[in-house]
Amino acid sequence: MKITGTFIDEISHDIPHQNWGPDEWDRDFGLMKAVGIDTVIMIRSGYRRFLTYPSAYLQKQFGCYRPPVDLVELFLQLADKHGIKFYFGLYDSGHYWDTGNLSHELDANRYVIDEVWQKYGHYASFGGWYLSMEISRRTKGATEAFRMLGSQCKQVSGGLPALISPWIDGKKAVMAASPQLTKEDAISVLEHEKEWSEIFEGIQGAVDAVAFQDGHIDYDQLDDFFAVNKKMADQFGLQCWTNAESFDRDMPIKFFPIKFEKLRLKLEAARRAGYDKAITFEFSHFMSPQSAYLQAGHLYNRYQEYLKTF
Amino acid sequence: MKITGTFIDEISHDIPHQNWGPDEWDRDFGLMKAVGIDTVIMIRSGYRRFLTYPSAYLQKQFGCYRPPVDLVELFLQLADKHGIKFYFGLYDSGHYWDTGNLSHELDANRYVIDEVWQKYGHYASFGGWYLSMEISRRTKGATEAFRMLGSQCKQVSGGLPALISPWIDGKKAVMAASPQLTKEDAISVLEHEKEWSEIFEGIQGAVDAVAFQDGHIDYDQLDDFFAVNKKMADQFGLQCWTNAESFDRDMPIKFFPIKFEKLRLKLEAARRAGYDKAITFEFSHFMSPQSAYLQAGHLYNRYQEYLKTF
Amino acid sequence: MKITGTFIDEISHDIPHQNWGPDEWDRDFGLMKAVGIDTVIMIRSGYRRFLTYPSAYLQKQFGCYRPPVDLVELFLQLADKHGIKFYFGLYDSGHYWDTGNLSHELDANRYVIDEVWQKYGHYASFGGWYLSMEISRRTKGATEAFRMLGSQCKQVSGGLPALISPWIDGKKAVMAASPQLTKEDAISVLEHEKEWSEIFEGIQGAVDAVAFQDGHIDYDQLDDFFAVNKKMADQFGLQCWTNAESFDRDMPIKFFPIKFEKLRLKLEAARRAGYDKAITFEFSHFMSPQSAYLQAGHLYNRYQEYLKTF
Repeated sequence: MKITGTFIDEISHDIPHQNWGPDEWDRDFGLMKAVGIDTVIMIRSGYRRFLTYPSAYLQKQFGCYRPPVDLVELFLQLADKHGIKFYFGLYDSGHYWDTGNLSHELDANRYVIDEVWQKYGHYASFGGWYLSMEISRRTKGATEAFRMLGSQCKQVSGGLPALISPWIDGKKAVMAASPQLTKEDAISVLEHEKEWSEIFEGIQGAVDAVAFQDGHIDYDQLDDFFAVNKKMADQFGLQCWTNAESFDRDMPIKFFPIKFEKLRLKLEAARRAGYDKAITFEFSHFMSPQSAYLQAGHLYNRYQEYLKTF
Repeated sequence: MKITGTFIDEISHDIPHQNWGPDEWDRDFGLMKAVGIDTVIMIRSGYRRFLTYPSAYLQKQFGCYRPPVDLVELFLQLADKHGIKFYFGLYDSGHYWDTGNLSHELDANRYVIDEVWQKYGHYASFGGWYLSMEISRRTKGATEAFRMLGSQCKQVSGGLPALISPWIDGKKAVMAASPQLTKEDAISVLEHEKEWSEIFEGIQGAVDAVAFQDGHIDYDQLDDFFAVNKKMADQFGLQCWTNAESFDRDMPIKFFPIKFEKLRLKLEAARRAGYDKAITFEFSHFMSPQSAYLQAGHLYNRYQEYLKTF
Repeated sequence: MKITGTFIDEISHDIPHQNWGPDEWDRDFGLMKAVGIDTVIMIRSGYRRFLTYPSAYLQKQFGCYRPPVDLVELFLQLADKHGIKFYFGLYDSGHYWDTGNLSHELDANRYVIDEVWQKYGHYASFGGWYLSMEISRRTKGATEAFRMLGSQCKQVSGGLPALISPWIDGKKAVMAASPQLTKEDAISVLEHEKEWSEIFEGIQGAVDAVAFQDGHIDYDQLDDFFAVNKKMADQFGLQCWTNAESFDRDMPIKFFPIKFEKLRLKLEAARRAGYDKAITFEFSHFMSPQSAYLQAGHLYNRYQEYLKTF
């Protein structure tokens, strides 16, 4: 299964920044394109006080800092240039992480969606929306939030698709800042199916594609979970994508590029399950030949060799 | 605000060593100079049993190891060559970290100061002293220690300046080996002012400049804390420098180069507060084009572009 | 003391993978050879479900994944080409780490040893066996396991030597995924001698060489522990090697290349104790000029300069 999309990790939560300028981004879009990527998804347009674009609203309302570069504009220009679709990731105020309450995300993004479409909607490469709340089964109010935000995104943009990328509450679902690598109380396939069926039912029509993160379960659980995900997606009319994480969750150093063999196992499981598309989190740190992590360039080479076997 | 000084992290506490030889150091001094750095501050001359120079006293008294290279001599020669001032950082026996008691630091450094001035005082670039105890508000006996050591440094060297670089006990003041990134019981601006006014009063005359580490508070607290720091420094006749940390305290990987935007926010806050000088911890790992962390080279480029906007 | 052997960290437990292909491995064997390495030791042939070679037995019995490349064959071909001896590391099922019980390791490896010797025993460079259980003093059943596995390895291969590399239960013996760097209840030299004398007595004849990992004790304890290790090895007819770890256990980032001075201290302590051979864990991440950790290339240069002083 070929990776045809990647997140762009701006603003980053937990992966150190590479400090790239426009030249490095231009080169990276070219490297993505060369390996078959047709979609980039900006993971979020802002996180707490840091922004990717100079939002008048967010600077005023949340005291956000004016960014040194308008990354949304840069990414859209590069997407236009390289013939890649760009998905815009909504704003993450951080209040949900602190309080478990999504109301700030809803309030803020109601304005952000309008502001962004007005500012950037004319770019040919503006291809969709990413609802950036990373939720799992227990996120209170997530269904409602996804439905409201997805609907608004689609309505304002003439129906451009909306994507979510939740995580499975599996054994590797631990906080990035935790020293642990696994936890005991992982979800079963049955619970996963029951809870996500309810969520999928609630969001159908407002969300077009779901790309579960594939790194929180063990490799021998991939087939079971993927089969259920595909079944649910079909039932509720969603596209079923995989978010093939290209970093390694099994190592004490958080986070470095994944061993190619592990990425391959995950991609092949997605193929077996009949998934519609594979995207990755993310190319520029973990698969790019110009990444600061030199293992990433070798992963790029191994992945290219793999493509030749198709 | 321009960075005109940098620490050199020898002997390192918590940042892995780059294993550079004289050639790499020579090149790095050149790269520093090219970007406007006129001062290097060796963070400490020794840490526990590891030394930067073959101190007869410390080998005998503390069982320290004879170092493979005399780094103090090397740095002074390179400082002479590149026209940079060198500050010598005192010895850290580690006993303070284990016991909370500074008496070993006082005893050891009384000898170290004399030994070092005798051995290296003739270098033209020997420009000052760094009192290497990294203290915060609750460090018992710190005022007394700073006064005694600073006075001796200045007296033996004909009045060369003495520098300290304490940390603010803010929300990010957690141990490097801790998985946590923040803590709950951060200090308020008022407490900070009260406690540091007492310390500044006690050290005036013996210490010439104070460079608070800027990484332990949040970005929206910079203005408040910086204003107080400058006010206190002025009141007690100290120069007010900022120690602009060029590594990122917000990431689970400890520690990688900072996102340029964050560094810029901190430098601009120092400018607004009327600070006298900006130094960084530290150039060679986090801002150098030859750093093992390739993000550092990109930070160097972004910083150079920033300098052109002045 | 010269390093003449290195582990190859396939399958890795805790060091992120470099994603090298045959070209990078070929170059690395050349770089090893150039610096005096005559022995490579593959740390384990498999770990849980991941394998270095397509073992029919392990795929069937443990549900292991078929690896994308046969690394055992690749390493043996490169060892033949470069004139290096290859030690084969046994399979680690992971059950011991989960349960404290070595029975799975014994059951699995009884088959693995036969399978491997049949498949790869004809390679000229197949030079020995590595009993990959990393044990310390409290490992129940370790003596028995080492004796049985070592005997079978030697018997099937016409007496090729068997190596173990246990750890000293010293102050730095903490789990890789733990944020701590040291612990309180470290073993004393006397306890170490008492307990390991019993183990050595139990394995004599079945194991030929023991290479204690040198990174779990402090630098000023090296001489005491090394003297006892050599004495015990002599007493029970084992060769005494040192496993000179080339990564740094003293840093919060786990794990990056060691400072050269520390490696030198450990090698010189092994020389003083009259050790027979020095190997390292491991060259390709921590000492190789093509490592993703650029500090490793500088360590390679420092180590080469050191060799010239002999």
